[in-house]
Amino acid sequence: MAKRARSQEAKEEKAGAILDMAAEMFATKEFERIKMSEIAKALGISNGILFVYFKTKEMLFFQLLMREYARRLENMEQRIEKADIGNYDLFKKLVLEEMAVIIEDSDMYIRLVSIRGAILEKNIDLEVMIESKQWFYNRFKEVALIIYERCKVFKPDEIMEIFLVQESILVGCKLCSSLPKDVLNIIDKYQMEGFKFAFKDNALKTMSYYLDGMHQHD
Amino acid sequence: MAKRARSQEAKEEKAGAILDMAAEMFATKEFERIKMSEIAKALGISNGILFVYFKTKEMLFFQLLMREYARRLENMEQRIEKADIGNYDLFKKLVLEEMAVIIEDSDMYIRLVSIRGAILEKNIDLEVMIESKQWFYNRFKEVALIIYERCKVFKPDEIMEIFLVQESILVGCKLCSSLPKDVLNIIDKYQMEGFKFAFKDNALKTMSYYLDGMHQHD
Repeated sequence: MAKRARSQEAKEEKAGAILDMAAEMFATKEFERIKMSEIAKALGISNGILFVYFKTKEMLFFQLLMREYARRLENMEQRIEKADIGNYDLFKKLVLEEMAVIIEDSDMYIRLVSIRGAILEKNIDLEVMIESKQWFYNRFKEVALIIYERCKVFKPDEIMEIFLVQESILVGCKLCSSLPKDVLNIIDKYQMEGFKFAFKDNALKTMSYYLDGMHQHD
Repeated sequence: MAKRARSQEAKEEKAGAILDMAAEMFATKEFERIKMSEIAKALGISNGILFVYFKTKEMLFFQLLMREYARRLENMEQRIEKADIGNYDLFKKLVLEEMAVIIEDSDMYIRLVSIRGAILEKNIDLEVMIESKQWFYNRFKEVALIIYERCKVFKPDEIMEIFLVQESILVGCKLCSSLPKDVLNIIDKYQMEGFKFAFKDNALKTMSYYLDGMHQHD
């Protein structure tokens, strides 16, 4: 039993190291350009071993996203514990603060989310998918319930909806504001300020108005 | 002069036919998988001729998006002319109706927008870019001004912002709700309804709340 536990632990450690390396590469390279063999090489393991841990590149990056989700939920739980979210304004403040942190620190998370449905989830084992989704769903629900208990403004399913919409706003604003430098220069030179779509400002503003509108309807 | 006009007309006709063919292929194929040579072949022209009209694949699809923008603005202008948008509720109704039409009929437009900044605008002649952007900006401003004159609720620059945010919501909700069939089956089977993120419903709801929040702040 002890041996099995140790080996399980070692496996998880190895899987973690692989995820770390994938994250490191993803920071400077697009998903399409990363090769599994490159990850194996950087870790000094064989392709065969790598594929024992993650059957496909999509599977590897899907698990990386799952780890990011887990971290986000954990962070959120900790924030909620410390913060007063006893009314709508305080809840809104917390959501926008968390969103600002994501925008500043978690470019990887936003990029992973934007390829989730269209790329990652298309090439994953059904079993892994079911297990991950169920785990995440239950965890997500748990955190929504904690928020609901602390802040009775929105129902748990509304809270889940808010965070899914937040994801869409992050991905959409990121994509629509990712203008190449040449384009930004042109916008400045020809005074087309209306085209300047600053990612952070716009994502936060959109989320803020969305929350206000939702609250108004509730 | 007459001859030049005719030849200009013929050129525009040819360019239009190329854009039509690109649109047709894009309906069933992703941008990355479409080859310029394939488009040329389908039109019965040489690669050389195709590249006279559009120097790069990005340029071709950027112009296709520009054509879509032009059509959208024209449609919007026509709708505004016919509709009563004398107050916030009527303006909101018009925006949401137009958005529903985009979602139902213009999958191509949404897909083009989502690759605009990150792909298309990275490989375009500066001159073409400047000319297109300026034309679009002036046209966009014109329509925003018409809306403003008919409906004094939002200022012209707020109206432009609304339509840029609409673009982000469309792209974000589309990406986050594009779940493969397997995933949808799992969601149903394991009763994780909170993960069902219907594109049309959610995009319209998000936009509706966003507008209400914006109106509230105005």
